[in-house]
Formats: sequence, C-alpha cells, structure tokens
Amino acid sequence: MEKIKLGIIGCGIAANDLHYPALRKLEDKFEVRLVCNHTEPKAQKLAKKFGEIPYVIDYHDLLQNKAIDAVDIALPIELNHQVSRDAIKAGKHVIVEKPLAKNLKQGRKLVNIEKQTDLVTLTAENFHYKPVYQKARELIEENLIGNISIVRWNIFNNLRPDNKYYKTRWRREHKHPGGYITDGGVHFIAGIREIFDDYRFVSSVKKSINPAIGNVDTLFIKFSAEKGILGNLNISYSTNSYSNEKLVINGTKGSIIIEGNHLKLFHKNVLTEEFDFSNHNGYTLEFEDFYEAIINNGKVKCPFRESYKDLAIIMEALNKAKTI
Amino acid sequence: MEKIKLGIIGCGIAANDLHYPALRKLEDKFEVRLVCNHTEPKAQKLAKKFGEIPYVIDYHDLLQNKAIDAVDIALPIELNHQVSRDAIKAGKHVIVEKPLAKNLKQGRKLVNIEKQTDLVTLTAENFHYKPVYQKARELIEENLIGNISIVRWNIFNNLRPDNKYYKTRWRREHKHPGGYITDGGVHFIAGIREIFDDYRFVSSVKKSINPAIGNVDTLFIKFSAEKGILGNLNISYSTNSYSNEKLVINGTKGSIIIEGNHLKLFHKNVLTEEFDFSNHNGYTLEFEDFYEAIINNGKVKCPFRESYKDLAIIMEALNKAKTI
Repeated sequence: MEKIKLGIIGCGIAANDLHYPALRKLEDKFEVRLVCNHTEPKAQKLAKKFGEIPYVIDYHDLLQNKAIDAVDIALPIELNHQVSRDAIKAGKHVIVEKPLAKNLKQGRKLVNIEKQTDLVTLTAENFHYKPVYQKARELIEENLIGNISIVRWNIFNNLRPDNKYYKTRWRREHKHPGGYITDGGVHFIAGIREIFDDYRFVSSVKKSINPAIGNVDTLFIKFSAEKGILGNLNISYSTNSYSNEKLVINGTKGSIIIEGNHLKLFHKNVLTEEFDFSNHNGYTLEFEDFYEAIINNGKVKCPFRESYKDLAIIMEALNKAKTI
Repeated sequence: MEKIKLGIIGCGIAANDLHYPALRKLEDKFEVRLVCNHTEPKAQKLAKKFGEIPYVIDYHDLLQNKAIDAVDIALPIELNHQVSRDAIKAGKHVIVEKPLAKNLKQGRKLVNIEKQTDLVTLTAENFHYKPVYQKARELIEENLIGNISIVRWNIFNNLRPDNKYYKTRWRREHKHPGGYITDGGVHFIAGIREIFDDYRFVSSVKKSINPAIGNVDTLFIKFSAEKGILGNLNISYSTNSYSNEKLVINGTKGSIIIEGNHLKLFHKNVLTEEFDFSNHNGYTLEFEDFYEAIINNGKVKCPFRESYKDLAIIMEALNKAKTI
C-alpha cells in the first residue's frame, strides 16, 4: 500500500494525544517523516515517539522538504491561516486542526485558496467523522422518531488549573475570538450539522464566569433547523456538569439520546435499540479520509469550506449574543 | 381553635386532588360548609367527600350565604377575575387558584381591588410556599455555593390523552393566553422568584408541537437575575422527559440541585448535604397562611400582587417570544 509521507507542524496536545494514536493505527497509510515545533523539547519528544525521526523548529524548513507529501497542522488557532496557506503554496496536502481559522476573514481566505488548488485540504473536525451522528441522521430519515420538535444539548465543563487544555497558555490567554467557546464549541456545531440541515440562528447569550480562561467561557444558543425544529445548545467551560448532559432529540414518535459515541433510540419513552461507536475513532477516520482523497484524487468529507460553516455559526452566536 | 367557614367554588381537579387533602389535614382550622359547581354531579361528589355538606350550582348562591367567611376559588382560569371580584364584593376572604387571572388586564383589576379591601386575598401558588426554594435561598445567602453563574431548569412533560389535565376541556381548548404554558409555567417562575431577586427577561422562543393542546405548548426562556446570573428555563408540555430534569444552580464554590421537594448541596462536585421537604406540602402551607392572616389580621406570603408578578413574567416571555 502506498504511504503518504507526512510532516507534523505543532507538537502540542492535539498532535500527541489525538493524532499520534490515530497515525500509529494507520502506519500502513502514513509515514511520519518529520515533525516541527518552535519549542525544541516538544519537537524532540514527538520525534522520539515516532521512532527517532528528525525534527525542525522552523515550519518553513519542514515545508521546503521535498520528501514530504502532506502536512498535519496542529498549532495554536491563530496560526492556522498562515501555516495552511504556506503549506499549500509549498505544494503540500493539508490537514489542519479545527477551528479552521481564528476569525472569518482568515477562514474565507483559506476557503478561497482551497477553491484554487488541486491539493487535498481537510479540516480535522473529528465530529464530522463520528458515526454516531450519521447514525442519528439515518434513524431520523427512517422516520423512527417521527417529526422532531426539540433538540437540546448541554455541554458543561468546569476547566480548572489541572486540566490539560487549561494549561495551554494560547488557549487560556486566547488571541482568537471566543477562546475555549470557539475552540470547543465548533465541535458541537459540527455534530448538530451532521444530523440536521438548515441550521438557523435564533438568539444567544454569553457570559464570562472565570476571567482566568478568557473574556467569554459560556455561550447559550437557540437555533432552528428544518421543519420547525427548536434547538438549544448550551456550552460553558466554567460550570460544573452533572450526569445526563446528553444530546437529546425529541420527536413525535420517539427520541434519540447521544452520549459520547453511544446512541439510544426510544420509541415513546421505551428504549428500543442501542448503538455503540466507541471503536470508531473520529481522528482515525479523518486521517483515513485524507489518505483516500490524496491517493484517489477524491473529495474529503470535511474540506475547509465545511469547517468554515461551523466557525461562522459560532461567530454569529458570539457576535449576536446578549452579554449577561 | 376558631374555625374559618369556607365555601369552595369549582369542584374540579384542583379542589379534589390538591385542596381537599390539605383541608382534611386542616380540619381544626377550616370547616368546609358549602361547595359549588355548575355541573351538579361534580358539586355533589365533592360535597359528599366533605361529609354530605350542602352544595349549590350557582356561585352567587354561595357568595350570598352569610355563614361563609371565606371562599376557595378553583375554577377555569378565565373565571378567576369575575368570581374573585364578586366574592370580595360579597365580603368574603378569597383564596384563588393560580394563575391570578387569564390576562394582565384582569390581573391588574384584581390587584387594585386587593389594595382597597381589608379582606384577606391570597393566590394559591403552592410554589411560593414550598420550603425547598426558601432553603435554596438560605444556602445561597450563607454563601455555601459562592457566586452564582448559571441557573437551569428543564420542565418537560408530554401530555397525552390519559393525563388528567389533558382531559379538562378548558385547559386543552384554552381561552387564557398561553394554555398549559401559562397554567403550569407560573409555578416555575414562582419557584425561581422564591430563590432569586431581580428577575429580568432576556429572550424567549415558543413553539406548538401538539396543536391538540392549544396554540403553544413549548416556551424556552432566558433570563438574568442579580449579580449576572444567567438563567435558562425550558418548559414544554409536548416533549418527553428523561431523568435528571432538575433545577440546577451552579456557583463558583458549589451547586444546588433541586428535584421536587428534595435539595442536594454540592461543594465543588461533591455532595455535602441533602434536605428533604416531602412532608411540607405547599397546599397545606398556603391554606395555613390564609388562616393565620384571617385570624390575626395579618399579611399573606402570596397576595394577588405577588402572583401578578409571576403572570406578568410568563406573559412577557410569551409575547416577546420568537415563534419557531
């Protein structure tokens, strides 16, 4: 099997905890040749994990390496535009961590670049690859829960200093609008868009509970979707969660409840079927999609223009929110 | 002990299922002398339960009865104004079921009548009498959960034809704006107002899921309260509920979770104390309050002007709601 020669730019949490395990599983498809981080020990550490491969500390050095076919960009959000643009300019296929860019202006620039290139461009939004949401869409299309009225999803985390994402200074002292809300919130928008069409913003409120993690950490969104669906997406990174914070979809005939990669289907109030997708890792699936598109000149499920839509939704909700 | 001689106008669900058990417990305080319902068998039935007391079918006959000190009005909402007004005019103390009136205009008329009378006037809003909400306020005032950021409460019921409140035609084919949302929703507003001051409307959406129960059955409200509290009150009478639909109050130091008459206090995420008020029935407490005020010329906890505030909040949320 032909292997893609991959370079990784950014050796932080995403590269180590999310991409490394996926790429290990896909060793028949990707050969990681080179990693890059401007903090040398971090580059060194990841290079070692991949089997003592070389590393660089300037990403231009990685992009100039002719042996590299594709790059995986896992950097602080505010660098996504610049590095993705440079990588495409250097002729590399690009998989870049979500959200696509730090703002819509830079996002649009990347979408325009994508239109003009034959290279494969993919945003690593794992929620667009989670089979649990696609299963929900199928069950709805099979009319198993009837007409949907209410969709509700609470995502409450209380980020404390011992949390690994709290420890990242670029996340805490964010230069990208929305901070953790943008960084984390696009996931749930992506999940919702996997299930429902015709998302429309209705109203939102925002709040900063813990100023130590940025100027906003809480965003409650009301939206509508096709056929009069009323949606309620509440996200807070400074609020304790309690059990049962699930995605609940209520229809006239039944309901779907999604918790992580697990889906429960109810007829009226009776549990009728369960589906578990814990073995289907969104990170692995997004790299597989990237691989197939490169090898077969195909299309990816989450090109830049798709992840741009997620970002646009979060930005609209943040910009139009009443501040409490 | 001096007994209040009480007449009951309206022999429906409230009189039978809520007031009758309370008045049975308070037999040393209230002597039910006469009941009234325009449907004779219903009057007959309740009269029998109270020990074969007399009944009438025209409420004017009850009001003209000189032996009656006070009346308990448990009628379809659209009659509250007219009958309360007539009862006060006839010199009777009045306890009337919530919501105070079918609309704000009639509510204001009753508040004005209340200002001008020395008779005791009370709205039977049991949530204003539930000790669980007063306990929550105390714990918050003792600073046990720190500064409050988020308050959230989902109240989801799916009213089906076998529900006793569904069977009442005046509820289902409602003449009062808001239907079940007004009838049921004022309770939760009352509960929230027992805990928090300075309620302010932020935004709302409404929806009709099941037209068989009226032109609106779902109302999601965002509100704020003192010190930047963000509140989320979601009410639907046509949506299946799942476990954990509780009132959750998140603070910087801990949380309070209220389910029915049960309160759990958390320090951070650790349960530290529980309080149960299942033995303290709001219906009994409201009749006791009514009794004490009549006997001692005192004030009641929930005069018309208090329940008017609850109604005004529901009406504002309904009127300003975006329809989905």
